[in-house]
Amino acid sequence: MAGKKVNEDLLNERAKCNFDVEELTNLLDDGVEHTKRRRTLEQNILSIEGLQDDIPEEYLSHKEKYENGLRKTLLMCKALQTYDKESAGRSFQENIRLNFRNSLWSAVTKDTSPLLLHLEMFMIAILEQGNEEQREYWSKKATNFEIIGTYAQTELGHGTFIRGLETQATYDVGTEEFVLHSPTITAYKWWPGGMGHTANYCVVMAQLYIKGKNYGIQPFMVQIRDEETHMPLPGVKVGEIGPKLGFNTVNNGFLGFDNVRIPRDRMLMKNAQVLKDGTYKASPNSKLAYGAMVYVRVVIINSACKYLARATTIAVRYSAIRRQSQLKPNAPEPQIIDYVTQQHKLLIAISTSHAYHFTARWLWDLYTKTNQELRRGEFKNLPELHILACSMKVLSSADCTALIEKCRLACGGHGYLMSSSLPILYGVSTATVTYEGENTVLLLQVARSLVKTWDQILKGHISVSPSMVYLGNRTPLPKWDSSLQGILESFKRVAKGKVSASVSSIDQYRKSGLSPEDAWNKASVQLISAAEAHARIIVLSVYKAEIERRASTLSSPLATVLLELLELYYIYWALEKTGDLLLYTKLSEKDVRDLQHRYEDILEKIRPNAVGLVDAFDFRDEILSSTLGAYDGRAYERLMEEALKSPLNKEPVNQSFEKYLKPFMRGKL
Amino acid sequence: MAGKKVNEDLLNERAKCNFDVEELTNLLDDGVEHTKRRRTLEQNILSIEGLQDDIPEEYLSHKEKYENGLRKTLLMCKALQTYDKESAGRSFQENIRLNFRNSLWSAVTKDTSPLLLHLEMFMIAILEQGNEEQREYWSKKATNFEIIGTYAQTELGHGTFIRGLETQATYDVGTEEFVLHSPTITAYKWWPGGMGHTANYCVVMAQLYIKGKNYGIQPFMVQIRDEETHMPLPGVKVGEIGPKLGFNTVNNGFLGFDNVRIPRDRMLMKNAQVLKDGTYKASPNSKLAYGAMVYVRVVIINSACKYLARATTIAVRYSAIRRQSQLKPNAPEPQIIDYVTQQHKLLIAISTSHAYHFTARWLWDLYTKTNQELRRGEFKNLPELHILACSMKVLSSADCTALIEKCRLACGGHGYLMSSSLPILYGVSTATVTYEGENTVLLLQVARSLVKTWDQILKGHISVSPSMVYLGNRTPLPKWDSSLQGILESFKRVAKGKVSASVSSIDQYRKSGLSPEDAWNKASVQLISAAEAHARIIVLSVYKAEIERRASTLSSPLATVLLELLELYYIYWALEKTGDLLLYTKLSEKDVRDLQHRYEDILEKIRPNAVGLVDAFDFRDEILSSTLGAYDGRAYERLMEEALKSPLNKEPVNQSFEKYLKPFMRGKL
Repeated sequence: MAGKKVNEDLLNERAKCNFDVEELTNLLDDGVEHTKRRRTLEQNILSIEGLQDDIPEEYLSHKEKYENGLRKTLLMCKALQTYDKESAGRSFQENIRLNFRNSLWSAVTKDTSPLLLHLEMFMIAILEQGNEEQREYWSKKATNFEIIGTYAQTELGHGTFIRGLETQATYDVGTEEFVLHSPTITAYKWWPGGMGHTANYCVVMAQLYIKGKNYGIQPFMVQIRDEETHMPLPGVKVGEIGPKLGFNTVNNGFLGFDNVRIPRDRMLMKNAQVLKDGTYKASPNSKLAYGAMVYVRVVIINSACKYLARATTIAVRYSAIRRQSQLKPNAPEPQIIDYVTQQHKLLIAISTSHAYHFTARWLWDLYTKTNQELRRGEFKNLPELHILACSMKVLSSADCTALIEKCRLACGGHGYLMSSSLPILYGVSTATVTYEGENTVLLLQVARSLVKTWDQILKGHISVSPSMVYLGNRTPLPKWDSSLQGILESFKRVAKGKVSASVSSIDQYRKSGLSPEDAWNKASVQLISAAEAHARIIVLSVYKAEIERRASTLSSPLATVLLELLELYYIYWALEKTGDLLLYTKLSEKDVRDLQHRYEDILEKIRPNAVGLVDAFDFRDEILSSTLGAYDGRAYERLMEEALKSPLNKEPVNQSFEKYLKPFMRGKL
Repeated sequence: MAGKKVNEDLLNERAKCNFDVEELTNLLDDGVEHTKRRRTLEQNILSIEGLQDDIPEEYLSHKEKYENGLRKTLLMCKALQTYDKESAGRSFQENIRLNFRNSLWSAVTKDTSPLLLHLEMFMIAILEQGNEEQREYWSKKATNFEIIGTYAQTELGHGTFIRGLETQATYDVGTEEFVLHSPTITAYKWWPGGMGHTANYCVVMAQLYIKGKNYGIQPFMVQIRDEETHMPLPGVKVGEIGPKLGFNTVNNGFLGFDNVRIPRDRMLMKNAQVLKDGTYKASPNSKLAYGAMVYVRVVIINSACKYLARATTIAVRYSAIRRQSQLKPNAPEPQIIDYVTQQHKLLIAISTSHAYHFTARWLWDLYTKTNQELRRGEFKNLPELHILACSMKVLSSADCTALIEKCRLACGGHGYLMSSSLPILYGVSTATVTYEGENTVLLLQVARSLVKTWDQILKGHISVSPSMVYLGNRTPLPKWDSSLQGILESFKRVAKGKVSASVSSIDQYRKSGLSPEDAWNKASVQLISAAEAHARIIVLSVYKAEIERRASTLSSPLATVLLELLELYYIYWALEKTGDLLLYTKLSEKDVRDLQHRYEDILEKIRPNAVGLVDAFDFRDEILSSTLGAYDGRAYERLMEEALKSPLNKEPVNQSFEKYLKPFMRGKL
C-alpha cells in the first residue's frame, strides 16, 4: 500500500468515513488478536519469492496454467508449514474455523489449486469415513504430503443421484480383495480436483457388491499412480477433463477402472464394514455422514461471502475513482458512485456480504453443537441443521454470485478485463451454485421438509423444527408494520402463504387424477419459490439477531452504519418481493411508496461510508489482485501496466503478419 | 449429422414432435429459398480445410489464440469471397439483413474475430461519415482488404460520455495537417477490436481544435502501422489490452498518439468539414449520425437472440438425453427435461429467442423506413426509433444473457466445461449488456423520454410517440382480463403507473429542496424500473403482433405451438411482475393462482415439442460446437473425446511431477 500516490478521490472518501474502519475489521475477524494473526501470516507468506507471477496466469496455455499452479501450490504448502506451525496442534475443523477470514490462497492460485481436494475433501473423507486405524494411517500420510489424494464421487453420467452411481467394488472372498470396475463410459469418475495429473491416491465412492448382492455406496481408498514414477497403475484410466469457466488450475480429472484389485482394508470402514469372509456389517447410524455434508456447506457460505466482499471492494473503490458523464450542466464529471443507480447496485452487495458473514458463523456454531450431540447419539436436531445448511448454501451461492456479476457490470467495460479479477471471481463463485448439492435439487429438499412440517401441523403435531414454527401461526394478519421486526414477520407470512398455496395446488392436481409424484412435480415451480421464501427468512432473522446482539458492544458510529446496512438489506428485499408481500400481508400501495423512499434515503446515508466499509474487509492488494480495486486507486495506470505484461506486447509486430496477414492483403494467401 | 448412432431419447423426442420442423426453420429464415441459400453457404464454407481446430482454442495460450484466430479469420474471409460472390452486388446493409440467420463465424472463431471491427464498425464509419470521395476511396480499400481498419472511440478514462473524450486533433493551418495527440494516460484509446496487432488503419474520434477553439468530436482516418513492415508509425503507441471474459481472439487494443500528423483530407467530412484555411463548416444535420447507432443496436438484438437460441439448443437436447434421479419410486431415472423445474428454466428461453427474433426484424424494417425519411430530410420519427432501439437493446441483451446463464446452470456441472460452449456463449453475450450504450445509461435515456412525454401529455400535447400513447390513457382501470390482449393492456397500466410514481417522487424531492438534477438522481432507481416496464410492453406487443400476423399463413400444428410459446411468454412475465400488476391493475390473489396453474399447464403442452423447437433453429454441429448439444445426443462420448484432445492428456505423467511434486512429497522442494 506504500509507494505511489493514492488517488485523490479515494483520499477524500477515506477522510469522510465516519466510523473506525479498524474496529469493523476486528469485528469481522472475531477480535483484535485474530486480525493481528491473519495479517502477520499474510505478511510472511506474501513476501516469499516465486508466489507471484511475472506474467499473469491468464496469458498461459492450459497446460502451463496447471504447471505453474502446481508449482505455486507446493511453495505455498511449504510456506504454510513454516509460518503456520501452530495449525498442527489443532484439529482439522478448528483450523478451518480459524481461517474463515483467510483468503491467502486467492493471492497465489486465483483460479484455485490442484491440491484443493487433497486439503479438503480427501482429508475429510479419511477423518469421517475411516475407522480409527485407517484415520491414523492415512491422515498422517496425507498431512505430511507423502501421498496426494482426491475424492471421487460424481461420474460422467451421475451427479445428484448418489444411488445411481455405476462404479463397482466387488468383493472377492477368495483373495480378500475388492475389484473396482467401471462398466460403462458414464461410470467414469468425472470432476475430482487434482485427479488429472496430481493425485496418486483417491477415495472412490462405489457400489459395493458381495456375492452378487448390492450393499449400496461405500468409500474405498484406491492408489491410482505409482509412488515412484507417477505412472497410472495397470487398469487405471486417468486424465484431465479440459478447460472450464473457472478452476482452470485445479486439474479436474476423470478416472475409470478396468478390474483393479485393492486389499480389503482399503475400504474405509468407520460406518459399514466388510469382514474377511464377506460378511457385511451395516453402519450403526447412517446419519453420521450428514455431518460432513453440513460442514462443507457452511464452508461454501463463508467462501461465497468472501468472494462477494472482494468483488464489492473492487467495484466500490473503482466507482469512487471513475468519473463519468454529468449530473449537472457545466459541473465536472462526477464519481460514478454518486449515481443512485450505482449505489443501488453496490451497497446491497456490502449488506449481503455481511449477512452471509454472520450467517456462516452462526451456522458453524450450530453445526459444532449438533456434532457434539451426534457423538453422544442424539440426532433430533440433525434434520433442522440439514435443512438450514441446504437453505443457506442455496441462497448464499445464488445471491453472492448474482451480486458479483452486478459488481462486474457496474465497472463497465473494464470489469470485463481479466485484470480486474471480476471475471475470475464470477467463475469460482458460480460453481458454488452447482456443486455440493445443485441449488434446485436442494430447494426441492427444503420444500419436501416444509410440506412435511405443514402436514404435521395440520395433524396437530406441535414439536416442529424451530425455524418452521411460523408455519403454524394462526393469528389473524396484522396491519402492515414497517419496523424490521414487522418486515421479518411479514416475510414469514409470505413463506407460509407460499407453502399453503403449493400444498393446495398439489391437492388440486391429485384430485384431477395425477399421481402424488406427478402432482408434486407439476407444482414444483411453486415449491421452489416457497423454499426460497423460507430460506430468506433465515438470513433475515440471523443477520438481524447477530447485528443487534453485537451493536451494544460497538462504538456508536460503527453500530449505526451496521444497522443502516441491516435496514438496507430489509428494505431492498421488501421491495424485491413486493408481489409476495402484497399477496400475503396487508402491505398497501402507499406502503410500497414509503418503502421506496426509505430505500432512497438509506442509500444516501450509507454512501459516504462506502469506501470505509470495503476497506474494512481488509483485503491486501495481492489478494484482490485487481487493476480496478487496489488500495491506492491507480486503476488506469495499473490497467496499462498489466496490459504491457502481455507476451503479445513484447514484439511490435506479431509473426502472423508475415505469415498470414501480409499475403492475405496482397491477395496471395 | 450422419455416422454414429443417434441417442434413443432424442429419436423418441423427434418422433413425438407434432409440427413440421422444416416449416419453422423456413419461417425463421424468411422463406424456403433463404434456408436453402444459408445451408448451401454453410456446407461450402464448413468443408474447407483448416477452419476447424484440432486442438480446441481453449487449450492455447493467449498469444496462440490470437495467431490461430487471425489465421482462421483470413481463411474465412477468403472462403466468403469465393462462395458468397453475390454479396459484392448488394449494399452493406442489405448483406447484413440477408445474413441475420447466419452464424457461420461462430463455427470458425467462437470467441469472435480480430477482423470484427474491420468488417463492421470501420466500414460503417467510412460509409456514414466519409464524403463521397472518401467513401469511394476508403471503402474500396477496406472491402478488398488492402488495408485493415478498426474504429477507436472509447478511451481508458472515457466511455459513455462522448463529450468527455480527451484525444486531440489540432488543425495546423500552416501545413494543412491535423496533429493527433493523447495528452494523458486516460486519453489512450482502449478496446478497439483488432487494434492490438492487426489493423494498420483506424477511424479515430477526437476533439477537433482549430486556432485554439474546440469544435467537438470528429472522425479521422489515421494510418497507424506501416503497410509494408506493419511497424507502428512514429508517435503511435499501440498494443493489446490483455485477456478478457470473452472476445479473446479479437485482439482488442490501445492506441496513443504523440503529436502524429495527418493530412487535412483524412478527416471524414460527410457531416462537418474543415477547409484549408481552417474554416469550420458545421454539419447540416447532426441527427444523421443516429442512423448508424440504431443500426448497430438492431444487430445486437439479432445477435442476442441467436446466442440464446444456441444455448437453448444445447440445454434442451442435453436435458432430453440426461437422466437423473427419480420422479417415482422404482421407476428408471427420468430425462431431466421431465422435471417441471427444468421446463421452467428452458421453455421460456425458446419463447424469448422467438420474441427477439421477430422484434429485431420488425425494428430493422422500421429503421429502413425511417432511414429513407431521413434522406428526404424528415426527422419526425427519429426520436421514437431511437428510444425503441435503446429499449430493445437493453432488454434483449439483459434477457438473453440471463437465460443463457440459466441454460448453462440447467446443464449442471457439464455446463461449466468449455467444451459445452455455454461459458463462451455467456462471455460474448454478456458483453452486449455493456457495449454500444451501457444498459443503465440507456434506460435513463428512455426514462428521460418517458418523463418528457408525460409532461407534454399533462400540458395537453396530443402528438406523442406512438409507443408512448398509453401514457395518456385516462379510462378507468378495467377488471382483470387474462387474455393476451388484456395482459398487454395491464402491462401498459404498470408502465404508466411507474412513470407516474417516478414523477411524483421527483416532485416530492424537489419540494423538499433538492435541485432538479438531484431529485432526478434520487428517483433514478424508480426511473429505470419505469423504463424497463416500457421496454417490456414493446417486446410483448411486437412479439404478439408478429406471431398473430403470421399464424394464418402457417400449418395449424405450427401455428398452435408458436401461439403456445407466445402465451407462455405472457404468463411467465405476468408471474414475474405480480407485484407491479397487483399495484397497478385489478389483479387479485385468485387471478395469480389461476395464472400459475395456466403456466404449469402450458409448460406441459409445450414439453413434447421442445426438441423439435430447438432443432428448428437449425444450427449445424460445427456452429453449436458443443459436446452437450450435438444433433446426435452423444454427449458423454463427446465429453470424453474432447477431454482426450487436451495436450495435458498426451503424456501419462506431466513434467511437473519430477520437477516439483516428487521433491515436495519427499520433503526436498
